[in-house]
Parts: sequence; structure tokens; C-alpha cells
Amino acid sequence: MRTLTFQRVTFTMGLPLLKRAIQDQVEKTRNFVSRSLVIGEVLSMADMATGVKCGIIYWLFGGAIRSLGGPAHVTQWLQPLQEQKYTGMFAMTERGHGSNVRAIQTEATFDFSAQEFVIDTPCKNAEKMYIGNAMYGNYAAVFAQLIINGRSQGPHCFIVPVRDENGSLYPGVTVVDMMHKEGLHGVDNGILRFDSVRIPRENLLDKFGSVGPDGQYHSPIKDKSARFNAMLAALTPSRLAVTFQAMGSMKLGLTIAIRYSHSRRQFGPKAREEVKIIEHQTQTLRLMPHLATALALTFASRYAGTLLDEDIFRGKELVDSRPLQALVAGLKAYSTWENVSCLQDCRECTGGMGYMMENQISGLKCDTDVFVTFEGDNVVMLQVVVRELLAQYTKQCEERPVSSLLRNWVESGSDRLRTSFLAFNMDTVGHLTFLLKAVHFRERILQRGLVARIYYKVMTEKEDFFSAWNSCLHHITCLSLAHIHRVTLEQFCLAVRNCPDQEDQDLLKQFCLLYGTKLVFQERAWYLEHKYLTPMTSMRIRRQARC
Amino acid sequence: MRTLTFQRVTFTMGLPLLKRAIQDQVEKTRNFVSRSLVIGEVLSMADMATGVKCGIIYWLFGGAIRSLGGPAHVTQWLQPLQEQKYTGMFAMTERGHGSNVRAIQTEATFDFSAQEFVIDTPCKNAEKMYIGNAMYGNYAAVFAQLIINGRSQGPHCFIVPVRDENGSLYPGVTVVDMMHKEGLHGVDNGILRFDSVRIPRENLLDKFGSVGPDGQYHSPIKDKSARFNAMLAALTPSRLAVTFQAMGSMKLGLTIAIRYSHSRRQFGPKAREEVKIIEHQTQTLRLMPHLATALALTFASRYAGTLLDEDIFRGKELVDSRPLQALVAGLKAYSTWENVSCLQDCRECTGGMGYMMENQISGLKCDTDVFVTFEGDNVVMLQVVVRELLAQYTKQCEERPVSSLLRNWVESGSDRLRTSFLAFNMDTVGHLTFLLKAVHFRERILQRGLVARIYYKVMTEKEDFFSAWNSCLHHITCLSLAHIHRVTLEQFCLAVRNCPDQEDQDLLKQFCLLYGTKLVFQERAWYLEHKYLTPMTSMRIRRQARC
Repeated sequence: MRTLTFQRVTFTMGLPLLKRAIQDQVEKTRNFVSRSLVIGEVLSMADMATGVKCGIIYWLFGGAIRSLGGPAHVTQWLQPLQEQKYTGMFAMTERGHGSNVRAIQTEATFDFSAQEFVIDTPCKNAEKMYIGNAMYGNYAAVFAQLIINGRSQGPHCFIVPVRDENGSLYPGVTVVDMMHKEGLHGVDNGILRFDSVRIPRENLLDKFGSVGPDGQYHSPIKDKSARFNAMLAALTPSRLAVTFQAMGSMKLGLTIAIRYSHSRRQFGPKAREEVKIIEHQTQTLRLMPHLATALALTFASRYAGTLLDEDIFRGKELVDSRPLQALVAGLKAYSTWENVSCLQDCRECTGGMGYMMENQISGLKCDTDVFVTFEGDNVVMLQVVVRELLAQYTKQCEERPVSSLLRNWVESGSDRLRTSFLAFNMDTVGHLTFLLKAVHFRERILQRGLVARIYYKVMTEKEDFFSAWNSCLHHITCLSLAHIHRVTLEQFCLAVRNCPDQEDQDLLKQFCLLYGTKLVFQERAWYLEHKYLTPMTSMRIRRQARC
Repeated sequence: MRTLTFQRVTFTMGLPLLKRAIQDQVEKTRNFVSRSLVIGEVLSMADMATGVKCGIIYWLFGGAIRSLGGPAHVTQWLQPLQEQKYTGMFAMTERGHGSNVRAIQTEATFDFSAQEFVIDTPCKNAEKMYIGNAMYGNYAAVFAQLIINGRSQGPHCFIVPVRDENGSLYPGVTVVDMMHKEGLHGVDNGILRFDSVRIPRENLLDKFGSVGPDGQYHSPIKDKSARFNAMLAALTPSRLAVTFQAMGSMKLGLTIAIRYSHSRRQFGPKAREEVKIIEHQTQTLRLMPHLATALALTFASRYAGTLLDEDIFRGKELVDSRPLQALVAGLKAYSTWENVSCLQDCRECTGGMGYMMENQISGLKCDTDVFVTFEGDNVVMLQVVVRELLAQYTKQCEERPVSSLLRNWVESGSDRLRTSFLAFNMDTVGHLTFLLKAVHFRERILQRGLVARIYYKVMTEKEDFFSAWNSCLHHITCLSLAHIHRVTLEQFCLAVRNCPDQEDQDLLKQFCLLYGTKLVFQERAWYLEHKYLTPMTSMRIRRQARC
């Protein structure tokens, strides 16, 4: 399976379209991110393991070089990567630190006399784990604490040779096969250990921190924590790539399940032909909202891709685009969870057929299940979203410091009045404007509530920040998803408005309404609690969700 | 993998405890069902494929003989099955009919002169499909339309020889390996085709319908549809066995995930040791309600087992126990869905580790995913529940025919008043009585609403029953689950009351409260819409669910 996947990767990356895509990455051609993302989506529909493995080599390894290295690194490493002279891997996660990557323990100690870094795995918890392409790859982008004169400058990324072109490991490198997983059997994950592996000084990807021949450390960002944030932010495109892969998976699963539901017949009126199972009310109710979500995610993630492209084209550091960071982290969590739930329904709605590997749905499920974990656990991603939102909010408040808190409360009150009035109006429930206002309202109220809670805990109760934050985690995840839902619905509405063909537009609008209704429907308890909906309006939305 | 599983089955069934369990089944010893169910649960925790394969041979094949055959069949077939002289399979599902099994097309035509039945697969849709143990089994319990003089008496079950003790197929039998599935790789599923396979007249399991030497058909149940219902009802114990297997899976998954969460550390207060991940609010909120549900299901399914045992011991036909039929069908759907959702959270809460096969959770997920489909698709199961509930309800109404409808409405009104009053009382939200009343209320209102809707559609609007039923399918599934939730919470409360140890009781009570709170919390929108909860009480329940 792994050999086959490796052959597929080689074949795929030899295709002119894909060679061009890597070349665009090297040249930073306008919109290269969006184009690559769509290629990734299509590739993952053809074969998920191939898509993921290409992602590891070109998005993660290649992306690290492009985003964290200087121009010399790009020339030296990306060109031969495109020509398939070698393949790479991305070694960030360690046994001891998967989510809290800032605390990784692998060491890169600068040896002044040799002008080299010495890469070491000081303990079992520092082993690099789950590393994709570990059994085949030649080079690894290794994250390690950069140590100069016994002092750490925080995690940095280094190119470390793992095995030569004949596949023999270099001295000091140990690789252990991690063997069987739930899915992605074509992707070889392994454990890496380094024992005094020496690499030239130039192998440090030095965009955010460099070491001169004199052993002096230089960085454009003074604060260690801010520096690492900038590095992580630079890797944003590969995070968005997961969303595109998850969408590919949803679309393929839905295509199979919906087509099957239109051909399979079971039960029916007495003495008449059995009906197509799509005509069973529950079948439609289970599948159609997923289709609406897949469409919504398409527009939201393309929007994120466009923003990324603009920032990169303008040479803006991604860490400075807080809303974009929040959006990409949130989309990763939202899309991968939606994918899990969508495929589960596709599997169940196709009965025994859905359980057979030959019909693809169960294979897709197993392959993509890990998407909720990789490139950052979803619950951690949602925290990233809120951290970015709060940073924005705090900035806003600082700009109008005097009466900001009071004013917020007043605004919140008038919101409630205005929207409750809307909710009493019979006609509006079925309108996109009603749904848009509702998701807006939810996001705002959750955000203000969270700010107030954390402020109270930290400032009044003197709790330490970690425990205050932790006791609000559920609130945080709700706000995070509310934010992503709002942006996603907005982008869907824009797509409807900009659709050039009338017939397409009508159809798209129906799905947009279904999507918005689903969002409000699933949170209607919250809307009722906040008196945004009356019981009667809520029941009307319930009926609307059933159509 | 299949060979290994076969060896495990052979070894397991040779254990004295299990030989005794089969012997109990032969002798119909008191409480033999409950004891076997628990053995099934434990076995499935040791190895799911072994558990499922034992289930096929002893519950499904053996159960068909015990429940559908006469005493002679039991003596002739169960004894050698227990001694492992041969193994069996259960062949009901066909390519064309999985859920609507009443419409299966395999034929068993009586040949008077030879005193034999001729088993035939008349078309591709009549092929027996997904048959477990198809690649190893010697005999199959085959469901086929019993045809005498060109007229079908509906589906009956026949013992059909498939292969001899050396593994060679008998003439006229074709078996096709169905190969790869999402999980249960140790279970061999296949397709069976019959071409004029002749079996002696005695191989008809004739408890509910027999053919004499004179070719005359006899049955204690005149109506064909009622007769088939009686046969299906007799197979109830094997349906309950799936619930026990799903519980075994949940308990194993939770044990692994919760223990891991108590040892893994990630993130923490500044400059202090990282905290155990169970201390992250979201981790507890994701895992603990599943643990509460696993406990609740334990008591509810043991209760169902006890009822089954009593009925069987008293010689009562299971089809006459409508509440029991509803309970077992509902528990099968509820428990298998809860298992899917529980394992998904266990998988996600253990991160990358949860994706590795060696840590069992992902394997359990793949193995048990099909539980939502087999022994009857869950959505079909929920319809069985409501069919039984409505049959009870109709009977009730018939007994007090004059003012029944009016009276129902009055009762419904007073319910609302009484319970709304409760909801305003601050103290009661955290009490089991409050939660019990709430789930009762929901079930009653949903049931009355459904009766009224169907009555209106069929009697007033003159819709045909199928389309009326179909347009209420969502309502039906809600009622079904509401019923099972109510019974499950009641059984959990009883278990708390009867717990002999004070410390255990206190702990159990906490989980019982959590379970009840979860039930009301997840439906709080509905309670708000029905003014059973006020927004303030609802928020209180929200806080309670967060504890």
C-alpha cells in the first residue's frame, strides 16, 4: 500500500499542472495558494493517502522552506524538490508535545568552531512522532530549541538529512515505523530520534531568526513567544489545505450517498413499487444539510485562500492578519468536524453497502478521521480563533478607553430589542437577512460574555490566566464556532448574490437558506434562552429546517 | 485474520462457561438470556470480531433454531452445534431487501413427491448478502418464501446445508467472498446463491408454520403478516445482544480514553508543570456524559434482558410483549448510536495516539460502526418502537372510546401547568424527580402529537398510510428516542435506589444526575418551545450540564 502510494505521489507530482504549481510557489506567483488548494482538494478525492502524502512533502516540508527560509533556501531546496530529486518530511510534533508545540524538547546546539548545529533528542518525550514520509523521506524540516551558549532562543526550524538517495539512514538518525493506523495506510508515519546529528549553519531556516558566523543571534522579533507565533502563522496555508481536503472528502462521500439514495428502493405504499430511499423523510433530512454545509464551506475556504494570496502577494507577514489567522484555524476545526459527521451519515444512509470498502465511504471515514487531530487538535484550533478575536477586541477597546465597557452593554441591549422585534415578524424567519442577523447576534453576545467572564475572573477574583481561561473553555469553543458560522454564512450569501446564472442562483439560494436555517436551528435553545426567538418563531424555524 | 478469528471462536466456545451457556439455551434454563448477554459483552471487549462471529453462530443461527424450530430441531441441531461438530450462518438479508425483509425473494418450493423443499435464488436481487461465516459455515438458516402449489405462505426459515465437514460446497450452492470492510476483518461476509438445492421437509423450522407429509400447510397464526411478525419477534434476544456488544465497546473505549487523560499532560499555568488533560474543561465535558450513558444503558439493557428471560421462562410468545419489543428495538438503535458518538470522542480526546491501531479505540470504531446497520437499520428500529407504542396507545383508546380524545387533551393541558410550575421552582432542576418528569412529559406530548397528526392525515386528508407515516418520520424518530430515554433514565434511577453500598450509591447518583441532565439539556429547545422550561431554568440546566 505504501509502495503504491509512493508511486502515485511520484506520478502525480510529475504531471505538468503540479510541476507548475510548485514552480508558482517558488516564484510566489499571484494566487498560487488558491490554485494549489484546489489541486489538493481534487487530488484528495482521487486518493486521500496520495493527497495527504503530497501535502506532507510539498505543503508542509516545502511550505516550511518557503515560509521560514530565506531566498537562498528557496533556490537551494525547492527547485530539486519540484524535480523530485528528493522528498522531505515535517518534524514538529514530539511524543511529549503535540498540542503545546512551544514546549518541544529537541535541541539544536550551535557549535561555533565547526560552524554547525548539533541536533539531539535528549529524552524519550523529545522523540519526533507521527512523522509522515518517515520511512521514505530524505530530508526533514525539524523544529528544535535553538541553543547558543547554553541559552535557548525558542523553537526554530532546521533542514536535517535523514537518509541518502539509496534509502540508507545517515549516522545518528534512528527511524521507527509506527505501523498500523485507522486509515491512511499508504502514508508511512514514524518516530525520529537524533543523536548528535551535525548540520551546516546554513540549514537553519532563518527568516525569523538567524545565527551569524560569529555565533551572534539576530531576529526581527525580540520576544521569543511572538517569534514562534510568527513562525506558526507563516505555516497557515498548509492548515487551510486540510480544510480543502476535508471538503473533497465530504463532496465525494455525499455524491456516493445521494446517488445511491436515488437508485436504491425500499418500502412503499401497499401493493405498489417500493420508493427510492431518498424519498424517506429521514434520508433527505440527514443528507441535505451536509450538502448545504459542503457548499458553504467551499465559499468560506475559497475566501480564506484569497485573503492569504493577497497577504502573501503584498509581502505582509501572516501573523499580522489576526482575522485571517482566526478564520483559517476555525475553518480547519469546523470543516474537519463537519466532514466526520457528514461521512458518518453517508455511511449509515447507505446501509451495509456503505460499510464495504469498495464503495469508498468507509475508507474515506478512516482516512480523514485524523484530520480533526493533525495540523493542530480541533479544540486547540478553536482556542486559537478566540485568542485572535480577543486580541482584536482588546485593541478595539483600547482605542476608545473611557466608556467602552458601558457602551458595549448599551449596544448589547439595543441589539436584543431590535432583533427580538424581528423575531416577532412572521415573514422574516425564512429570509437570509434574518438568519444573518441571528448568527451575528450570537457571536457578539458570546464574545462580550466571554470578555466579561475572563475579566472578572482575572481582575476581580485574581485567578491566574490559565485557570480562568480553562474554566471558560466551553464558552470559548462556542464563540469560536459561532464566529466561523457567521463568516461562512456571509460568504455563502455573497456567493449567491454574485452567481451569474439565474437558475444556479435560485438553487444555490435554497441551499444557502437551508444552511442558515440549520445554524439557527441547532442553536435555537440558546436563542430562546436569550429571548432572541420566541417559542413560536423557534417552532417556525424547526418546520423550516424540516423542508 | 479470519483464520485467527476462527481459531479464537473455536477456543472460546470450548470454554466450560460457554458450553454451559449453550446447554442452558438448549434446556431453556431460567435467566439463560441475561447470562449469555453478559458473556457476549465481555467477549466483545476481548475481541470484537470473535464476539460478533460467536454471535452469528450461536445467537443468530442457534437462536433461529431455538426460537423458530420445534423440540426435535433443538435436539437435532443445537447439541452438535454446542459440541462444535459444525458451524452455522444466518441468511436473511438479500441484495434487494435488507430493511424490508418481508419482501425477500428467495424461494422454498415444496416438492410433494420427494417430500423436499427446493431452495432457489430466482434473481440477482434475491442473493443472500453480507452473510457472516459464509466462507467457513456448514449450515445456513435461510429465510425464503414458502411456496406450496404455487402460492406463497410468506417468509419461513429453513436449514440449508452449505458445505461439508471438509469445507467443500454442496452442489447448487455458490458462495462469493465480499472481501474488505471498514472493520471486523476477522468476520467473513459473503454472498449466497442457491440453484435448486434440495432439503428434507424436516428442515423447515416449523414453530410458526409447518407442512405435513400431505403437503398441507398449518400455522397457529392465520394472517401472513402477523405470522412473520411473530417470527421476527422470536429473534428479539439476538437484537438485544447487539446492545450488549455496543456497551462493551463503549466501556472499553472510555476506559482507555479516561485513563490516558489522567496520565497525559499538556499546557498549564506559566512556569509550572503542565496539567493532566482531563483537567481541561472540554475533555471532561466530552468524556463524562458518555460514561454516564454507558452506565445508564447497562441498567436499561439488563432490565430488558430480565423481561425477556421472564417471558421465555413463562413460555409467552415474544410478539405479545409489545413494550418489550419496543424497548429492545429502541435500545439497539440508541446504544449503537451512542457507541459511535462515544468512540468518536474517545478517539479525538486521545489525539494521535487514538488514531493508532495498537491503542484499540480506532479498531473498535471500525468494528462497531456497522452495529447501527445490522440486526435492522437504526432508523427502521425506531419505527418499530413507535409502531409498538401506537399499537398500545390505540388499544388504550379503544378501551375508553367515548371521550378518549377529549380527555387526552385535558390531561395534556394539566401536565403542562403542573410541570411549568415545577420549572419555576429553583430547587428542583437538580433533582432526579424533575428530570424524570421532564422526560416523561416529552414522551407523552410527542406521542399525542404524532397520533393527532397521523389521524388527521389519514382520516381527514385521506392520505395513504405510507405517505402519512413517511411525512412524520422525523417526529417518529424523536418519539422513539424520547421513549427509550425515559425508560433508560427510570432504570438508572431504580439502580441508584437499589444500590446496597452507600459510597457506590452516591457516586452512581452523580452519574445518574449527569445522565438525566444531559437528556433534558440536549432537548432544552423543545422544552422551551413547549414552555416546560423558562429561559432561566434552561440556563440553570445548562450550567448543571457543565459541572
